[in-house]
Amino acid sequence: MSVTRAAGFAATGVVAGLKSTGKSDVALVRNLGPSSAAAAVFTSNRAKANPILWSQAVIGDGVVSAIVLNSGGANCYTGSFGFQTSHLTAEAVGEALGISAGDVLVCSTGLIGVGGQDFRDKVLAGVASAAPALSEEGGHDAALAIMTTDSKPKEAVVEGDGWSIGGMAKGAGMLAPGLATMLVVITTDALLHSEQLDTALRAATHVTFDRLDSDGCMSTNDQVSLLASGASGVTPTMDDFTAALTALCADLAKQLQADAEGASHEIVIETINAASESDAVEVGRSVARNNLFKAAVFGNDPNWGRVLAAIGTTGAEFDPYDIDVTINGVRVCKSGEPDEPAENVDLTPRIAHVLIDLKVGAAEATILTNDLTHDYVHENSAYSS
Amino acid sequence: MSVTRAAGFAATGVVAGLKSTGKSDVALVRNLGPSSAAAAVFTSNRAKANPILWSQAVIGDGVVSAIVLNSGGANCYTGSFGFQTSHLTAEAVGEALGISAGDVLVCSTGLIGVGGQDFRDKVLAGVASAAPALSEEGGHDAALAIMTTDSKPKEAVVEGDGWSIGGMAKGAGMLAPGLATMLVVITTDALLHSEQLDTALRAATHVTFDRLDSDGCMSTNDQVSLLASGASGVTPTMDDFTAALTALCADLAKQLQADAEGASHEIVIETINAASESDAVEVGRSVARNNLFKAAVFGNDPNWGRVLAAIGTTGAEFDPYDIDVTINGVRVCKSGEPDEPAENVDLTPRIAHVLIDLKVGAAEATILTNDLTHDYVHENSAYSS
Repeated sequence: MSVTRAAGFAATGVVAGLKSTGKSDVALVRNLGPSSAAAAVFTSNRAKANPILWSQAVIGDGVVSAIVLNSGGANCYTGSFGFQTSHLTAEAVGEALGISAGDVLVCSTGLIGVGGQDFRDKVLAGVASAAPALSEEGGHDAALAIMTTDSKPKEAVVEGDGWSIGGMAKGAGMLAPGLATMLVVITTDALLHSEQLDTALRAATHVTFDRLDSDGCMSTNDQVSLLASGASGVTPTMDDFTAALTALCADLAKQLQADAEGASHEIVIETINAASESDAVEVGRSVARNNLFKAAVFGNDPNWGRVLAAIGTTGAEFDPYDIDVTINGVRVCKSGEPDEPAENVDLTPRIAHVLIDLKVGAAEATILTNDLTHDYVHENSAYSS
Repeated sequence: MSVTRAAGFAATGVVAGLKSTGKSDVALVRNLGPSSAAAAVFTSNRAKANPILWSQAVIGDGVVSAIVLNSGGANCYTGSFGFQTSHLTAEAVGEALGISAGDVLVCSTGLIGVGGQDFRDKVLAGVASAAPALSEEGGHDAALAIMTTDSKPKEAVVEGDGWSIGGMAKGAGMLAPGLATMLVVITTDALLHSEQLDTALRAATHVTFDRLDSDGCMSTNDQVSLLASGASGVTPTMDDFTAALTALCADLAKQLQADAEGASHEIVIETINAASESDAVEVGRSVARNNLFKAAVFGNDPNWGRVLAAIGTTGAEFDPYDIDVTINGVRVCKSGEPDEPAENVDLTPRIAHVLIDLKVGAAEATILTNDLTHDYVHENSAYSS
């Protein structure tokens, strides 16, 4: 049920003709209140899509009554016509639901450069058919409608004490969020104001979506939105709510990683004993973006030399000749020298765990990535054709 | 003839048994003088191989009498034993040639972590057989002996007025030098002191090897060495020498790009009208490291949206909605909106030219890269097995 698990929400997904497959491609989520508090984080890519530009304006007052999402076209780099399309989409939702267009977030996903007249016509028709189809059981339909190259919908629910959080996500490629990720909609019936939601959302995404780096390519359309209906009447403590929200985001992030385009391994890069958390993130991300290491994991080759070569390109604090690397439980490198034989490492499981011990401090961070495979190349060399 | 084109040099390449293929794997280049001036630039990776640590000490006084290079093992992350091996290798060369070990540069290439007793024994035996085989016709043999996954040797010669420069290079993967690249040895019979050589070498590599970024992965063993014999007795102007040296480095860099592992396209990313040269380099490098764009080029798909998404992740000065992108002569994006149809772009030629117009200044830079192909994944998932 995901986004309709929490009380006070209705959702749906409909076929608007944007996807050539004929599958559903416009999703709508309505906050029925009594509260309309909301928060959102957006891609830090300077090349922002039109729906991002629109939604950044909408979120300014912390009030959101509905969010509309389409797959089948990113409406990015489509000029002022594309921005008008995002605006018109919000207005269509506002008219259909009797709410202000200024309280409607808009998200789009698909190919950059797609957002012309045909796109606009189909999105607006999709809104017209989605509005009357809203249902308090419609969460799954909405999750299906935002899929692009995803092989399965991503949904998660976390239960609080008298309140709950539900969320849906899409994303399989261009998966390296800077401040947010893909399209994610999270709903809660907790009674919290927008500043509280914003604080909790930034804390949760910072250690979940922000640490997912599947292919090093940051999207133009990333958006994570959190809508609170207050329908439970319960105000949890910020600690409890942030912990639950973080667990939900981590669940969705793992689902995104597991379904990354063409991947055959989910690689968990854990950096420990770093001088700072940002050092640990920098080291993990450098390894996560090293094509040679990612190709080696695809080949079930525990090539720790490529891990050290990637670490060496960072500015993090460490002694390059006093680092340990452990792959799936086997310490293959100790203090920068070969340790246990690489042949002892079993990389046939889908989960590959890389533990990097920098030995200079007490901070740590984990980055999630995927391997570089033939299927990744195939899927991304044929995507727009 | 490459490194033996200039007067005053002898070279050779011999089989030392480091390569399982039985091909030659130890190269030796001797400067016969009368001058022994030299300069070198090294990888900026903090994870530096033992031969780099040795050679950085050797180059301190600007005097080099010989350089010995091996393929079949990087001698990186092999601890103090590995450093002693580099030292012993230089001593063996010194003894065999009657020169100081402190004037012998050492270079290694191959797998990280390879550099144990067997490696040491074979390298030292290789030196013993190489020394008596030195020949003023031996440049090509030396170029063959430094190859790893290279499909062909890389050699170049530039003629000055009464002097000449020759060079050889190896490198096909882990090809993203930060301050140097791969293994490159350049010789000249021009009469220049080491400070002049250093200035010219840094100027030349800055705009050639430094702008080659095939796969975003910086090596631990990169070294470019320039040895001057002074045998021509001619001292060219610094402008003339730097121009010739830059032309030679550009020639070798193009050969490296053309032979990059698994590549099916050589991608030339030209960024113009940038606010600064460093902005142009940052923009070009970001596109060069975007796996989605590189996979699209492999699929002959002129996916300009991925170009703009990559540019948007940089800190360069530009208006994200006023950028033009031209691919192989077809302007597919004008001021951040679709322009000519992408179908008009022919990406079947091996050379792909991407022109990015930032429209904010007068600076420019060109980055060389390759596409992301099935063969790249195949070669790098199987390399160490």
